[in-house]
Amino acid sequence: MKTEKLPSPETISRTPFPGSKKVYVKGQLHDINVPMREISLSPTTDRFKNITEENPPVTVYDTSGPYTDPTVSINVLKGLPKLREPWIEQRNDTQTLASISSDYGRSRLANSELNYLRFEYAKKPRKAKPGYNVSQMHYAKQGIITPEMEFIAIRENQQLEERYQKDNTLWQQHKGHNFGAHTHGGFISPTFVRDEIARGRAVLPSNINHPEIEPMIIGRNFLVKINANIGNSAVTSSIEEEVEKMVWAIRWGADTVMDLSTGKNIHETREWIIRNAPVPIGTVPIYQALEKVNGKAEELTWELFKDTLIEQAEQGVDYFTIHAGVRLPYVPLTAKRTTGIVSRGGSIMAKWCLAHHQESFLYTHFEEICEIMKAYDVSFSLGDGLRPGSIADANDAAQFAELETLGELTKIAWKHDVQTMIEGPGHIPMHMIKENMDKQLKECGEAPFYTLGPLTTDIAPGYDHITSGIGAAMIGWFGTAMLCYVTPKEHLGLPNKKDVKDGVITYRIAAHAADLAKGHPGAQHRDNAMSKARFEFRWEDQFNLALDPDTAREFHDETLPAEGAKTAHFCSMCGPNFCSMKISQDVRDFAEEQGLETKEAVNKGMREKAAEFQKNNFEIYS
Amino acid sequence: MKTEKLPSPETISRTPFPGSKKVYVKGQLHDINVPMREISLSPTTDRFKNITEENPPVTVYDTSGPYTDPTVSINVLKGLPKLREPWIEQRNDTQTLASISSDYGRSRLANSELNYLRFEYAKKPRKAKPGYNVSQMHYAKQGIITPEMEFIAIRENQQLEERYQKDNTLWQQHKGHNFGAHTHGGFISPTFVRDEIARGRAVLPSNINHPEIEPMIIGRNFLVKINANIGNSAVTSSIEEEVEKMVWAIRWGADTVMDLSTGKNIHETREWIIRNAPVPIGTVPIYQALEKVNGKAEELTWELFKDTLIEQAEQGVDYFTIHAGVRLPYVPLTAKRTTGIVSRGGSIMAKWCLAHHQESFLYTHFEEICEIMKAYDVSFSLGDGLRPGSIADANDAAQFAELETLGELTKIAWKHDVQTMIEGPGHIPMHMIKENMDKQLKECGEAPFYTLGPLTTDIAPGYDHITSGIGAAMIGWFGTAMLCYVTPKEHLGLPNKKDVKDGVITYRIAAHAADLAKGHPGAQHRDNAMSKARFEFRWEDQFNLALDPDTAREFHDETLPAEGAKTAHFCSMCGPNFCSMKISQDVRDFAEEQGLETKEAVNKGMREKAAEFQKNNFEIYS
Repeated sequence: MKTEKLPSPETISRTPFPGSKKVYVKGQLHDINVPMREISLSPTTDRFKNITEENPPVTVYDTSGPYTDPTVSINVLKGLPKLREPWIEQRNDTQTLASISSDYGRSRLANSELNYLRFEYAKKPRKAKPGYNVSQMHYAKQGIITPEMEFIAIRENQQLEERYQKDNTLWQQHKGHNFGAHTHGGFISPTFVRDEIARGRAVLPSNINHPEIEPMIIGRNFLVKINANIGNSAVTSSIEEEVEKMVWAIRWGADTVMDLSTGKNIHETREWIIRNAPVPIGTVPIYQALEKVNGKAEELTWELFKDTLIEQAEQGVDYFTIHAGVRLPYVPLTAKRTTGIVSRGGSIMAKWCLAHHQESFLYTHFEEICEIMKAYDVSFSLGDGLRPGSIADANDAAQFAELETLGELTKIAWKHDVQTMIEGPGHIPMHMIKENMDKQLKECGEAPFYTLGPLTTDIAPGYDHITSGIGAAMIGWFGTAMLCYVTPKEHLGLPNKKDVKDGVITYRIAAHAADLAKGHPGAQHRDNAMSKARFEFRWEDQFNLALDPDTAREFHDETLPAEGAKTAHFCSMCGPNFCSMKISQDVRDFAEEQGLETKEAVNKGMREKAAEFQKNNFEIYS
Repeated sequence: MKTEKLPSPETISRTPFPGSKKVYVKGQLHDINVPMREISLSPTTDRFKNITEENPPVTVYDTSGPYTDPTVSINVLKGLPKLREPWIEQRNDTQTLASISSDYGRSRLANSELNYLRFEYAKKPRKAKPGYNVSQMHYAKQGIITPEMEFIAIRENQQLEERYQKDNTLWQQHKGHNFGAHTHGGFISPTFVRDEIARGRAVLPSNINHPEIEPMIIGRNFLVKINANIGNSAVTSSIEEEVEKMVWAIRWGADTVMDLSTGKNIHETREWIIRNAPVPIGTVPIYQALEKVNGKAEELTWELFKDTLIEQAEQGVDYFTIHAGVRLPYVPLTAKRTTGIVSRGGSIMAKWCLAHHQESFLYTHFEEICEIMKAYDVSFSLGDGLRPGSIADANDAAQFAELETLGELTKIAWKHDVQTMIEGPGHIPMHMIKENMDKQLKECGEAPFYTLGPLTTDIAPGYDHITSGIGAAMIGWFGTAMLCYVTPKEHLGLPNKKDVKDGVITYRIAAHAADLAKGHPGAQHRDNAMSKARFEFRWEDQFNLALDPDTAREFHDETLPAEGAKTAHFCSMCGPNFCSMKISQDVRDFAEEQGLETKEAVNKGMREKAAEFQKNNFEIYS
């Protein structure tokens, strides 16, 4: 029977952000238009000096795709415009296949009972011509700057360079401490993007079968990124919900989205998600492979897994989590753990190894996997199947043994010019987080680290977005390139839309706190704009500059709903008599008027100020 | 007209915690009963081996006071039982005054219009006999171990020692890194408590006029504590609400509560709060002083401020925030800041200094303040009136100039045997947090640091419990003794009950993450118990061990409401086929049965395991 609820234009969030407009910056090497969000600010007015002074707009990195651009018409039934199609065609190294290559994909297509839930406008898959490698790493190593690379350079800069020339005061920021990353180099150039990809220090996930994406990059020397997991489980949730969850996640700032569906119709659900996703999509192919053998891990085979990789690669999955580091000899190392193996993929492979007493087929067939990856430009996300699931198990022998193997596999992947990132833990107390980062950099030759949290304590189920947000901010600062979000439902249930938003906002905070601490170029600009607006009581600007304008406004209006309050020079926290900001304004105005250095200001200043106050009958607050 | 809503027994939260009971541990030196919460756990059952094994109960630090003990009858109109009264009397160094000493206090008492909202059972105030110093620091320096000190030793230990003898496996924890704190000394003894107080490294806030408190300690070598701010503002909220907010805040884990009321009836509101508070209460006396001069800072005088200190000391306030470090010469240092002065107290004193072009009377009269403090045992919380209000202003000249002055004042306070802690920032990017901690330890001779956050970014109003929870966890790890919570309403409005709970839970997480990272004795025990319960699918135990059992249960039941799901060996996240935990159980069981070291287990193990799986037709999941 027809059980699936399908997406419709009405079920997709498309409201633009308040006080913001979508702007597009043209490329110079390529014919590209790079989207960003421009937040316009109101002018600064001094009620005493009768001066008004413009505040330049603030451009922010925008992951939300065309959904927040009211000028773009989107039909979720047809999917997003195929931005990258001409770029891919111009490279002339791919072919369009007559039909799907995977047996499973063909069988689903042949099943007419699925017609009703099938994405109608699926295209024929594209694949590298025989003997070609279509990975961005391969191009980079040839010295080619692809449109994707230039797109990223412009996107990462967010017009900093241009704005900086106009007004560099707003760009003042603390130097930061970046633990040897290369983030003090100023603005990002297309060449830098290319070189980081060639070096393996950055990953540009961009399957040739996912032309809908707005290219983004994952690397220690770029802005810290975040991933949001969605996907239904045996405990149902519909295709409609999952597609909206994806759109909702990118609206609030998810840079990539992983579809971890384990329920029925995984294949069709994925097609709907990818065709409507402007961000890279990741999956854990072993989940679907396990469904194909009815949950019996021991019945998994290399052939079946291989068919699953091809199936998903031809749909357009941009990166695969593959737990090839869970080796037979490591399984017993988990025997004395408090929480054993907590990674689904890891436990599936451990079970297979035990059942067959054989080395993992992911490990033994790794080079064959590389061949598939480079034919579609799917990136590796080498899974940490033995990550600790509790504070007690942090940084143990099993975890680090696997990490060393992931380093060995990274070198093999790079030999094939396959883009690679490394997944990390998990549950780690604060003082043991840096050891993870340092070991990953060492073992994996600076391949991007992609961590889940880490959670810094086990005792707060219901708040694990926070227990993990603490660890995420720290490991992001230490050098992690992408932070996989954790929602408040972690350990308890499947996240709903509210949980997805809470998780994404928390991780945007962690990622930004990390960029600030690293001293990433321009990172502090938005903070400076917010603080200036705060000091000048420009409430609307404060809301619009916030990561979550809706909540900021709602919280403010809860106590002071009147429109007048939006221009009031105080708030409900202190009330007019207790506003600490105004007095500071007076001190500053004084020093500026006099054009004095603060030192001289002390004596001269204080005396005049005292007199002035007398004159005004001490009425400072209006 | 009668506008105030007063508390009533019905408006106070008294529900006990699920699966928990209040236990009282007797003292050995003194006749004291120290309350803690004991969480009982269900036994571990192995469905395969048919074994059940008891899990010892977990004792946790309990800030909620008698309110969560159903055997205690509480009448909010009469206030809490006066636990410390006999201890104070036995010291025989205090006198009960015939009447209130402060002019203001007397005038309020004489005002019959206030009768309806006055706390009826207020007692006559107590004060040190002439020439006596009744501070805990003074006793400690005499070598005396007071009942308060023994109470704290027992409370901090949470029966760790006793439990440890029974079962030390649960006590295994990571060593931690504590940056030179003295937290590796094992269990806390009364002597250690005394010596830390004498040394000035710990503060035991305990006004002789607040006998209702269950003594607690604030110091780098003890468990990290958290404070919750409550209090109404000009924008009204009632006495009823504020008292319930206090009870609500300690229920979820606030170790102390600050009453920052700035509205009308501050004096009476405070009486209601203190008489019903089992935790130390802090205030910022300058707020009330400013109300007394109708918000005109320049009209403040030392005499009026002194009267306010005495008024509040005789009501029982346990610690005063005093911004004596905001000196005239430092004010101009804030002139070029992005957000100037953001501390209310700081801006009030800056305004006074400007208006009079004189040095702050808090600074010039500091020794007189000390005389008042030691006559009631009020502790100093030396305020950071020049803390940065934005990332841009972090660690600047104004902030650090004030901190150096606070160090100078600490030595003066210690000369008078007055307990002292130091308040800290504010808004600080992650990489600049440690500099604050290190400078505070150096300048202030290891006096306890008490920080607000710090917030690690400015761009997330509505989520500042999280932006600051990150910084709080880190600075707690570095050595901060107490973390002042920040609620989601920070920068936007006054917190309601939900905000108070969100702020408190977030800060409990930060404080505990810090204890784990420091390797505080026994800190990991609750995490271990939680993780064991998680691994064994003891859902009820997971809920009951959680910082917030209600939310954990609610989130779980949202997807799996059935009672059966509470014993299911899977959850809605992965469903039965994807449960990563069971396989680990099998691996571990095997190794244990064989009594093998993991190394040998590899080969022997794998082969037998393989065979066993065949036998069971690969049916591992039931």
